[in-house]
Amino acid sequence: METISTNRSHDGIQGVYRHASAATGTDMTFSVYVPPHAEGARLPVVWYLSGLTCTHANVTEKGEFRSACAELGLIFVAPDTSPRGEGVPDDPEGAYDFGLGAGFYVDATQEPFSRHYRMWSYVTDELPGIIGESFPADMTRQSIMGHSMGGHGALTIGLTLPDRFRAVSAFSPIVAPGAVPWGQKALAGYLGEDKAAWRRHDAVALIEDGARVPELLVDQGAADQFLDGQLQPHRLRDACDAAGIGLTLGLHEGYDHSYYFISTFMETQLRWHAARL
Amino acid sequence: METISTNRSHDGIQGVYRHASAATGTDMTFSVYVPPHAEGARLPVVWYLSGLTCTHANVTEKGEFRSACAELGLIFVAPDTSPRGEGVPDDPEGAYDFGLGAGFYVDATQEPFSRHYRMWSYVTDELPGIIGESFPADMTRQSIMGHSMGGHGALTIGLTLPDRFRAVSAFSPIVAPGAVPWGQKALAGYLGEDKAAWRRHDAVALIEDGARVPELLVDQGAADQFLDGQLQPHRLRDACDAAGIGLTLGLHEGYDHSYYFISTFMETQLRWHAARL
Repeated sequence: METISTNRSHDGIQGVYRHASAATGTDMTFSVYVPPHAEGARLPVVWYLSGLTCTHANVTEKGEFRSACAELGLIFVAPDTSPRGEGVPDDPEGAYDFGLGAGFYVDATQEPFSRHYRMWSYVTDELPGIIGESFPADMTRQSIMGHSMGGHGALTIGLTLPDRFRAVSAFSPIVAPGAVPWGQKALAGYLGEDKAAWRRHDAVALIEDGARVPELLVDQGAADQFLDGQLQPHRLRDACDAAGIGLTLGLHEGYDHSYYFISTFMETQLRWHAARL
Repeated sequence: METISTNRSHDGIQGVYRHASAATGTDMTFSVYVPPHAEGARLPVVWYLSGLTCTHANVTEKGEFRSACAELGLIFVAPDTSPRGEGVPDDPEGAYDFGLGAGFYVDATQEPFSRHYRMWSYVTDELPGIIGESFPADMTRQSIMGHSMGGHGALTIGLTLPDRFRAVSAFSPIVAPGAVPWGQKALAGYLGEDKAAWRRHDAVALIEDGARVPELLVDQGAADQFLDGQLQPHRLRDACDAAGIGLTLGLHEGYDHSYYFISTFMETQLRWHAARL
């Protein structure tokens, strides 16, 4: 693991790191904020999965999470959103919603993507190993959150691994990718046309198929341009109601899909996580 | 004035605006955060002047000021750092420390810069008029802060207009540009070789020449790579001591010159301003 940069911030260290990933077969870059802590302490870990077009850098620069993480004693990990580099195939037309920057947190089964696009394995298996080894992390206390495509990732990973994550939340998530254009394109491209294979990567379908967590927290901007076409949080509301999952869904007047929205509600989400870690 | 973008954030509105500036003879872009407020209320204004290479966008995205401004009821204005566009001369070699992104908050007297590089007039005269007209601002309650070159701007403007600004502070400012390479290059290039003309744009020289404010607040990273070569806060310490100006100079172990440092101390600086507004 190579250290790209470290900067002192809010009395802790914001680092950016790169390593050769076995999962993706590429170099991968991620960021970790380690708050101030006592020598030898092991701290809980909050995973943050980013949305379409993002790298680790967007939330690292604009997320306004460090002040709360410093106060609450939380390590904050931000992976990239796809493999990148020489030989990594992209969307054939270079679209922003597939390929580079749009890994959708799945292990692709379709050529030519199956070689490198293994973000599920990367985020759930390989990177946790690195975090546990190289940072003062208590891996028995983890939680996960994300934005948009990363909210989809946080919900599907949290629902699949309920014993690992003590809290699961999202900002403006894609809750039912199988039902909306972004998700239909990505899941077909990475997993093929058989929609049965999509259900493990669709939060609403996972809940319909029996996945359970005690509670979920979702914040959503009411002025989000993608609300009706791509996000459709009412589908999660309905699935959680039917399954008896306690969903706290905050619909916030005037807020859009940007980091100006995320940063506004980051502190309250982190406090909700900390109370469960 | 053209609105480029508005985003709801921390219950207020973060806007970015563009207008044709008479001072610079170019279009100029700036950002304004207006916190939540009662209908008809007029709010105090904090000016933030940015450093070399920056536009309004750096602090707007990375400054972490909105949460505190929302709580404290402060309008936050971030101008650009130079004129830009067709016909605006740059550093002959394209260096980052002169010309575009490096206006140094002076009105240039030297060709070819004197036509457009009029950032002093822009920031102290033209833009305040726009803020007072177009935003719910109480222009009888203003304060000013800045970073690096913008810290120089905040100190020199605050010392020159002590009746306008109720609080003056800086992050890692260039306190004595006439004595360090960045400032010597800029002041010679914009104002000419006669160093007498530089003293009105040098915080330490202004204090030596009689400028007075009751107090100043400066935060400085002890691990700042520019500390010894360009910033030299001890010069401000000495000048303030000799002049009886109450300087609070915080030297912070481990912190560098970046927005990771600025964002860490933004809230405490804003609270210091709010208490004086």
